[in-house]
Amino acid sequence: MKDSQPLTWLGSKLRLLDQTNLPREEVYLELAGYQEVAQAIREMKVRGAPAIGVAAAYGVALGALEIETSSRDEFMARLKSVLETIEATRPTARNLFMATGRMQKAAEAAGSVAEIKEALVREAVRLHSEEAEATRKLAQFGADFIKNGASVLTHCNTGSLATTGYGTALGVIKYAYEQGKKLRVFATETRPRLQGTRLTAWELRQAGIPFTLITDSMAGHFMNRGEVSCVIVGADRIAANGDTANKIGTYSLAVLAMEHGIPFYVAAPTTTIDPMTSSGEEITIEERSPDEVLNIQGVSIAPEGIKAANPAFDVTPHLYISAIITEKGVVREPYGERLGEIV
Amino acid sequence: MKDSQPLTWLGSKLRLLDQTNLPREEVYLELAGYQEVAQAIREMKVRGAPAIGVAAAYGVALGALEIETSSRDEFMARLKSVLETIEATRPTARNLFMATGRMQKAAEAAGSVAEIKEALVREAVRLHSEEAEATRKLAQFGADFIKNGASVLTHCNTGSLATTGYGTALGVIKYAYEQGKKLRVFATETRPRLQGTRLTAWELRQAGIPFTLITDSMAGHFMNRGEVSCVIVGADRIAANGDTANKIGTYSLAVLAMEHGIPFYVAAPTTTIDPMTSSGEEITIEERSPDEVLNIQGVSIAPEGIKAANPAFDVTPHLYISAIITEKGVVREPYGERLGEIV
Repeated sequence: MKDSQPLTWLGSKLRLLDQTNLPREEVYLELAGYQEVAQAIREMKVRGAPAIGVAAAYGVALGALEIETSSRDEFMARLKSVLETIEATRPTARNLFMATGRMQKAAEAAGSVAEIKEALVREAVRLHSEEAEATRKLAQFGADFIKNGASVLTHCNTGSLATTGYGTALGVIKYAYEQGKKLRVFATETRPRLQGTRLTAWELRQAGIPFTLITDSMAGHFMNRGEVSCVIVGADRIAANGDTANKIGTYSLAVLAMEHGIPFYVAAPTTTIDPMTSSGEEITIEERSPDEVLNIQGVSIAPEGIKAANPAFDVTPHLYISAIITEKGVVREPYGERLGEIV
Repeated sequence: MKDSQPLTWLGSKLRLLDQTNLPREEVYLELAGYQEVAQAIREMKVRGAPAIGVAAAYGVALGALEIETSSRDEFMARLKSVLETIEATRPTARNLFMATGRMQKAAEAAGSVAEIKEALVREAVRLHSEEAEATRKLAQFGADFIKNGASVLTHCNTGSLATTGYGTALGVIKYAYEQGKKLRVFATETRPRLQGTRLTAWELRQAGIPFTLITDSMAGHFMNRGEVSCVIVGADRIAANGDTANKIGTYSLAVLAMEHGIPFYVAAPTTTIDPMTSSGEEITIEERSPDEVLNIQGVSIAPEGIKAANPAFDVTPHLYISAIITEKGVVREPYGERLGEIV
């Protein structure tokens, strides 16, 4: 797993690490069509906003390669349906729509069908490398906030698996650790999909960073005991005013952090910022199947036939956020002005 | 399950519903010795502070029946070891120590060994019926706080299974529902042991009360959306100043409730109040095995060899508590004075 990449472009196929099987099995899929990519995104075989964006771009490229016509008009009409299929997979992550937007633009700018296909593959590869580089840079900016001896709480998975690069929140933690700082991490398990237990624990162990896994419900307890120096999380969509949608449970952590006077940081590439969404109220929150709450890894844990809610994200109002860390620098209040300057 | 009792005294055995198998199987154990009772408490086959207290009392009675001697001194020495074994099972629930304290007093007050044995069985049966009656009464007091049309959030399991009676927090909800109020309940799953998913969902379904199961991490999200009218939880130990130890995650819910201006109620019989513990800082928090976090129903969910924390409880400072509901009435600030009056 040392060099495990969640996504690798193979020229006419997308190699994808199936994250739903981790940490038990390291299974790679080779996806040859956009429908397969759409399914992988929907089923969270690839997840994490930046990785979803990259997968979406490759999905569009694969979709373009599948279209057999020399008519530009017909090609563009069919490409539209590819874009719509990819966009319909998950509604919250900004990076998905940023990626399809860029791909559409790249298609429109190119000439013949052959040129468009080439341009789309090139654009997907470019987006992939930009995203990987962005997290490396933001990790560097963010590491300044992690003091030597700090105890950092993080939520969900925001490492290489989630970003195809260095990681957002987990990237910051890794960077600080590589600087030689003594750190301790609290990783929340992140119900219902257990990304903390399955993925973050795996990445932290690999990086050799000391950590303790906790249930989501334990965060307040450890904050109240003075055992948490700061909280750092990723983001799925950042509105123009700084309100941030991220994995369900993030908002509770932000409230708890403020109550205890603990800084709360969001780390994300600028591709997660959505200037067209003015505030968190406009962000669509994906509601996933109740089965994710009622079953754990295929084992039913609940009485039959009961009702469960499963919003995959929540929104943290910008007032709870101490700083937003991006590859273009660190943004603080007033977010409305400053986010506009860097996007 | 309509008449499922967590504990039934059979004269010289204790019949116990193994709650670790719920909701999959309704398995009853017949425990003939105090060591078996101690094990059942330790392994959470019986759980919930009031039910633990009742089980502890029966455990001591069984231990007494096992002692074969006519010497009062020898009997008392061996009874001491029974009491110590029962007390060593779980450190946080006040009701456990209340029960062993009462049993010890009953033994000391009786004459011959035969009389002590009889007195101990009588005392255990009395405590059982008192606890059952107490929750019925506190449920009645508490129901006044639940308005028609309310949406009530509760944590862990505090119904019949946890109390041998009507229930504490869940008793209040059931009582309000039986009054004809229209209610909706949010039940948190309560990681790591999933008492919400396994037990509360089961009891609510049986009572016919509409409810939605949520992960612990979703509470803040639904509060922020205005979907929660009040929070009501049970207690494992209430200090003299009102600070309350309860299932891990309770403290986070209390902070979130205060942030959203939502009332936060604790419901518990007075047997949960510990006048000898002046504040929450003095309460011992049980640390259970990390295996409970790393595995769910026997299925490993984490990479091997990682570290997890597992405090079974946390402490909610009294300032976050709107009212403590007991069978002797409702207590509000200043808790220090008023709790003293009713214990």
